[in-house]
Amino acid sequence: MNFQLTKDILSDLKEYILTGQDSKIISFISDLHPADIAEVLDEIKIGEAIYVFKLVDEEKAPDVIVELEDDVREKILESLTSKEIANIIDDNIDSDDATDLISELPIDKISEVISLIEDEEQVSDIVDLLAHPEDTAGGIMAKELISVHSKWTLSKTFRELVKQASDIDDVYSVYVIDDDEKLLGTLSLRRMLLNSKEPQSLIESIYNDEDLISVKVDMDAEEVALLMQKYDLIVVPVIDDDGVLVGRITIDDVVDVVTEEAEKDYQMASGISEDVESDDSVIVQLRGRLPWILIGMFGGLLAAQVIGRFEAQLSIIPAMALFIPLIIATGGNVGVQSAALVVQGLANKTLKLDNLVGKLLKELSVGLINGLICAVLLYGYAFLMDFGFELANTISVSLFIVILFSSLFGTFIPIFLNRIKIDPAFATGPFITTANDVLGLFIYFMIGQLMYSL
Amino acid sequence: MNFQLTKDILSDLKEYILTGQDSKIISFISDLHPADIAEVLDEIKIGEAIYVFKLVDEEKAPDVIVELEDDVREKILESLTSKEIANIIDDNIDSDDATDLISELPIDKISEVISLIEDEEQVSDIVDLLAHPEDTAGGIMAKELISVHSKWTLSKTFRELVKQASDIDDVYSVYVIDDDEKLLGTLSLRRMLLNSKEPQSLIESIYNDEDLISVKVDMDAEEVALLMQKYDLIVVPVIDDDGVLVGRITIDDVVDVVTEEAEKDYQMASGISEDVESDDSVIVQLRGRLPWILIGMFGGLLAAQVIGRFEAQLSIIPAMALFIPLIIATGGNVGVQSAALVVQGLANKTLKLDNLVGKLLKELSVGLINGLICAVLLYGYAFLMDFGFELANTISVSLFIVILFSSLFGTFIPIFLNRIKIDPAFATGPFITTANDVLGLFIYFMIGQLMYSL
Repeated sequence: MNFQLTKDILSDLKEYILTGQDSKIISFISDLHPADIAEVLDEIKIGEAIYVFKLVDEEKAPDVIVELEDDVREKILESLTSKEIANIIDDNIDSDDATDLISELPIDKISEVISLIEDEEQVSDIVDLLAHPEDTAGGIMAKELISVHSKWTLSKTFRELVKQASDIDDVYSVYVIDDDEKLLGTLSLRRMLLNSKEPQSLIESIYNDEDLISVKVDMDAEEVALLMQKYDLIVVPVIDDDGVLVGRITIDDVVDVVTEEAEKDYQMASGISEDVESDDSVIVQLRGRLPWILIGMFGGLLAAQVIGRFEAQLSIIPAMALFIPLIIATGGNVGVQSAALVVQGLANKTLKLDNLVGKLLKELSVGLINGLICAVLLYGYAFLMDFGFELANTISVSLFIVILFSSLFGTFIPIFLNRIKIDPAFATGPFITTANDVLGLFIYFMIGQLMYSL
Repeated sequence: MNFQLTKDILSDLKEYILTGQDSKIISFISDLHPADIAEVLDEIKIGEAIYVFKLVDEEKAPDVIVELEDDVREKILESLTSKEIANIIDDNIDSDDATDLISELPIDKISEVISLIEDEEQVSDIVDLLAHPEDTAGGIMAKELISVHSKWTLSKTFRELVKQASDIDDVYSVYVIDDDEKLLGTLSLRRMLLNSKEPQSLIESIYNDEDLISVKVDMDAEEVALLMQKYDLIVVPVIDDDGVLVGRITIDDVVDVVTEEAEKDYQMASGISEDVESDDSVIVQLRGRLPWILIGMFGGLLAAQVIGRFEAQLSIIPAMALFIPLIIATGGNVGVQSAALVVQGLANKTLKLDNLVGKLLKELSVGLINGLICAVLLYGYAFLMDFGFELANTISVSLFIVILFSSLFGTFIPIFLNRIKIDPAFATGPFITTANDVLGLFIYFMIGQLMYSL
């Protein structure tokens, strides 16, 4: 059942919509997985998507709407009445997805929709989840989980499991709690089966409490992602300050956190605001891209000011203009490298910040060696091309200093931003190259002044 | 049990190692999760890590070695005899991790280690897995899974599950196969429990075959990652060409694939070869960084050649030197943006390549508008600063053309690389900025010639 969306499928579907052949549309989508239906809806015009969505059967509709791209979902939700939205949330949809849906609605619609949901447990779960900030464990957890009491017998546990599992087809972990609903441990399928010959044995004598890893409800979502990756967890229980089991997070939700974070860092490094994709409209792309180009342009004007100050020098030694691109490009490249290593180290927690001086010293060594090698090569080139002693000296020494300086600057800035609680990824991309351009030029012309003893 | 590695812990440990207080080391590590022990070993000197690793008990050793950073693992494996490595793999370690370990050994040691493993099933699993390329479903799958035959009764199934699950404590899915071991569907805990009152019922009347998603053994690992993300799968069964169940992939292995891919793209965009981390030694950093700096430097020398060709022009209009940084920096920024959007779109499959002309036309629109806005702003600036008509014209028109050109160039190159099966991420970073620098300068001076009618 590996669905492949083709142009033919889309043009057939558009034809059915145009000619109102609902039965053909229904038979087409009835074979599809909700994620595939969502993929189709993302690809067609929004009016068509709304038309098709209303033909999706009740059972699949919740999963389809969860999988849609944000802008398509927003438009489809707008086309639905509060009652219709409440119906979608009433049917089998996990509480975390239900909460995400609700929180995307306009404020005035939220309470109306909630009041129309009939399943009382769902309502209390949603109200509870809405109270947690989006980027915490509480914000990404779901309330659906299977829990059993430590004082229960195995036979009661079996009966309860059948009851509780009626909503949840995939059971990843059965949690064991005490009378105060505090999390004690987990009960594996294997231990259940091993003891199934003695249905009167108590859970407290069977369950596993070794190596139990849980997260606090207010833990940062990214920290949860790192913890689940580190300990290779598929699902992790969430507890409150008293140790009471309040929810669970499965790794598929965490994968989204990881992916979004990585994409954000990548876009920042490329000088794009975080929410732009290649398929977005021209307007959205301009909004995400133009500001960064303008920052770069502003840096270019500053650079022009710097060169302007040294115009007299440039008219005496016009050959200095030739190496402006070399100096600023190399400075930019080195600065971006250094900053990217810090940003990545901070993101995956491999960078230990308790040794900032050590980090800068190492970067200094790398910069020194890179700088030396490049400077010697450039000196050799200048010698071969017969540029003359002063120019060869000026460009080689400048390149060396600029590489050294950019290494330190590129390392220090993101660490500094991180310390004052600004996203260090800002330091990559146009920002750091621009700053490097201006400072690199200044160094270049100052060294030139020295070398030519002007 | 959230372990936090501190300087104090490390200095205590180093003290124990120095003074040979093995009992203290053993009691320290016995409380730790294998992933935490690995974290500690990654932080201390390699000699110390080897010392501590030999004190890790047999049960934890396999998990510890799997979690280590690549270079530390390599060194520790070097310090072990083939017999010791075979013992680690013999104990409870999943076949996929065992295979990863084996494939990291020197060629001549591989067969020796395999011949020393006593568990025959493990040996045949490893030999089987070694045959699959690393970046396919077969290369990341594990052979450990729970499968039951469709003709079995429920009571036989329970007995078999207890047996099979003795190795596997976390059971995520029970697979149902036919007499030819072909995958038929899954058996959920809920359906087992629901039918537990009738132990003689056959599995074929109980199991679930709806919405069964599986992957072929030769599917690309990245495709598997995207499919699991799309369908929110925690685990996916792997089948061969005949539909025979051969393994399973859990999402924690896929998270690693996703993360590594994102980190690779990010490092490429920042001009770093893929295997460098902030904590790596100076030598490793130089190896990953210097080549990119040299590429940039080479571009700088080409740029010098271009400017050199126009030296006569530059001596007539020295003010043109002022805007060299502006032109090349803006071209670079725009090119990197465009390339990054394509690379990201290709990575997460949101970019549909069947409409290449449409894609280039959209990029052209974005480039046109960006270029117009920037050119007008720059013209205004030049007017205010009283630069004169020719210079204002030259820099504005050049900027416009460079932005347009860089947009198209940055879009086209990664698409082209992708088509000829080269990683499109090469097009980001120093490569594209360097190419843009040289071509941007050429455009700039040609426009200058025109405007000043030289």
